[in-house]
Amino acid sequence: MTVRVDLNVSVDGYATTTDQTPQDPVGADWMRLVEHYTATRTFRERVLHATDGSGTTGVDDDHVRESLRGVGAHVMGAGMFGLHTFPDDPDWTGWWGDEPPFGGPVLVLTHAPRPTLEFENGTTFTFLDAPLAEALDRARDVADGADVRLSGGVSLVREALAAGLVDRLHVAVTPILLGRGTNLWEGLRGLEDGYEVTAEAAPSGVLHLTFAR
Amino acid sequence: MTVRVDLNVSVDGYATTTDQTPQDPVGADWMRLVEHYTATRTFRERVLHATDGSGTTGVDDDHVRESLRGVGAHVMGAGMFGLHTFPDDPDWTGWWGDEPPFGGPVLVLTHAPRPTLEFENGTTFTFLDAPLAEALDRARDVADGADVRLSGGVSLVREALAAGLVDRLHVAVTPILLGRGTNLWEGLRGLEDGYEVTAEAAPSGVLHLTFAR
Repeated sequence: MTVRVDLNVSVDGYATTTDQTPQDPVGADWMRLVEHYTATRTFRERVLHATDGSGTTGVDDDHVRESLRGVGAHVMGAGMFGLHTFPDDPDWTGWWGDEPPFGGPVLVLTHAPRPTLEFENGTTFTFLDAPLAEALDRARDVADGADVRLSGGVSLVREALAAGLVDRLHVAVTPILLGRGTNLWEGLRGLEDGYEVTAEAAPSGVLHLTFAR
Repeated sequence: MTVRVDLNVSVDGYATTTDQTPQDPVGADWMRLVEHYTATRTFRERVLHATDGSGTTGVDDDHVRESLRGVGAHVMGAGMFGLHTFPDDPDWTGWWGDEPPFGGPVLVLTHAPRPTLEFENGTTFTFLDAPLAEALDRARDVADGADVRLSGGVSLVREALAAGLVDRLHVAVTPILLGRGTNLWEGLRGLEDGYEVTAEAAPSGVLHLTFAR
């Protein structure tokens, strides 16, 4: 019944990037931020459906595998689902394509709920107008004993951390400086209180920080 | 002829603390920030003159030893020497006591130079009204082939990093969030360009990042 968060941030704490364009909706900065993540064997197998055994193993890969294991329900903000991008299109089904990489229930927080979306791979998006704490409670019920993963965005994660709603925070710090975006660490003085913090370094140069109760 | 910097920062990037008082001029936050550093065997031997073999060894200690090795001259800002604290007292000899832990030439940047201070342990403070780049050049001459260490403060280090004047930056990231102070990373987007970045984790939970040319 743990609420978990996994995020990638730059050395200067930015968890979002700012160089997206209509032609490049992801952006070069985001690709650099998650390069170690998309290079792992687990990402290649689970998300790209690669079967050639390619991809890195070791610390980075261990964390990707851990982040996917034992998750019974996801909670995310409206922006992360994509509601803010085309707010007036009721048929817009978000950023996540035909096979959203969740494979289970996802609660999307929004002030403008819409009907539940179901996908063949088991992913369902349920839209909920509720305070974060209440959404996490509801996700706990849905998860039926498994973990709840708060997937983002960053402001929602900060809100959850400030309110003490997160049991395990894993942050992969990529050794680049972005200089702008949304800073994960803002306003979280003393976050370490009540957590045990562990640190690991990967050969990719990425530092993994885990705050666990 | 390398210009080097070693700093301690919190996870959220703060390299200074804000809880100093007249009764506690160092502050609890600073002690927490450098706890891993002051716990090392090298610190205990070199600064506290301990001879009992106490103190940690390993990653944290290796970095302390490395930071002290092969330094031919130091450069620091007026604030780090202590000039800003009692600016009107010409006899004030800074924060560093009777045995300043440098044992060699220190150039102090100030707009109000005063006579050179010499200590029995070989430390000399020379006060210089010059641009940072010029001070580093002068320190290189004084260092006579050994390294120059830019000791701080943080704003001076940021200025040096932004101007590309630092050859090796070592940052120990302590797993605490301070939430306020001077942020080392501010305004340094793309700092990693031209450096090779390596990451190490210490059992203390401290992450060591090294940017080296």
